[in-house]
Amino acid sequence: MRIVDLSQPVHTGMQVYPGDPEVTLTTVATVVEDGYQVASLHAGSHTGTHLDAPLHSIPGGRAVDDIDLARLVGSARIVRCTGLAAREMIPWSAVADQLEDLDGVAMVLFRTDWSEHFGTERYLEHPVLAAEVARQLLAAGITVVGVDTLNPDATLDNGDDLPFHTVFLGADGVIVENLANLAQVTWDRPLVSVLPLALAGTDGAPVRAVAMQPDA
Amino acid sequence: MRIVDLSQPVHTGMQVYPGDPEVTLTTVATVVEDGYQVASLHAGSHTGTHLDAPLHSIPGGRAVDDIDLARLVGSARIVRCTGLAAREMIPWSAVADQLEDLDGVAMVLFRTDWSEHFGTERYLEHPVLAAEVARQLLAAGITVVGVDTLNPDATLDNGDDLPFHTVFLGADGVIVENLANLAQVTWDRPLVSVLPLALAGTDGAPVRAVAMQPDA
Repeated sequence: MRIVDLSQPVHTGMQVYPGDPEVTLTTVATVVEDGYQVASLHAGSHTGTHLDAPLHSIPGGRAVDDIDLARLVGSARIVRCTGLAAREMIPWSAVADQLEDLDGVAMVLFRTDWSEHFGTERYLEHPVLAAEVARQLLAAGITVVGVDTLNPDATLDNGDDLPFHTVFLGADGVIVENLANLAQVTWDRPLVSVLPLALAGTDGAPVRAVAMQPDA
Repeated sequence: MRIVDLSQPVHTGMQVYPGDPEVTLTTVATVVEDGYQVASLHAGSHTGTHLDAPLHSIPGGRAVDDIDLARLVGSARIVRCTGLAAREMIPWSAVADQLEDLDGVAMVLFRTDWSEHFGTERYLEHPVLAAEVARQLLAAGITVVGVDTLNPDATLDNGDDLPFHTVFLGADGVIVENLANLAQVTWDRPLVSVLPLALAGTDGAPVRAVAMQPDA
């Protein structure tokens, strides 16, 4: 089994969405004092690599622990959108040819390689997916999308307008954000797992996302 | 893909190991006020279904984000040890016949069904695995073990003696605790994933554990 970690590590002070809870990870018990070591984690539900449930954008929407897990482990199509400028919009026309013939595809992941800027101010100036991409994916039966950026919508100067989220989560889709290392997935039809922590009744949760090649 | 959730849900006030950090999950942003909903999580590294890295028991041991992920997704052998009394010890002789021929087995999970008592005082009085089981598994090349109890060692009145942990983590093995729903895995050779959150440099982390039947 070949396996690539698609997750950003979780650590104290790591970059988060502006205004989200800060992350702290603190040792609270030690082998010498207590017989074993334990840490305390404080984090937001959208920390690091994580899943947005419909409830994130849609009052009354589905919570993260109410998503059928069979949707979250499956064959992925990775769409290459590298070499983009800061804040560049990705229209449907730029990706349509990579999204033909989705038979057997469970989820679509957009690779911009903007994940290389994680932890810097530039990470906030990521490319943006057009709402039309959300509509076309839904029309093709895709309800799980991942991005290697902080957000499929603009993060800066967005005027609280999050059209990709509104369309995709509004149709009971889910979005995985802050994926990493998509460039390391060099084989076709990777088996991808984006299983979130089972945070009861919550709008989203951290994920240990991986891409697998079972026969490798 | 048939999939069974092997994880306990994470919620405010859920049962934790005595003395571990309490779990709180609080909504801190809402669609009406902020345009989206976000929650804040406070939890210990050993909350709910989780993985113990060697660092949990062994100073200088391997941290949870330094475990080869290929060890944590693979074919599992589920050993049935149901119908046991409170605090009953499981000796090697009771499970040896279910642990023959481990070729191709990546991890061994012990099913006691004590998970049905999760959230009650009785959950603390779980059965216990003998340290000899740890030694025999290691000798057979197994370095990932899971239990559907709080602890492979005794939790109550243990005198700070955790012999299974000491042997298994001391050999760079890992232990998954608080598994759930093992009774629902009704097919042979399930593909099991116990991927932990990538908590940097930490002694353990929550896991969304699942059992899969890829061809179902």
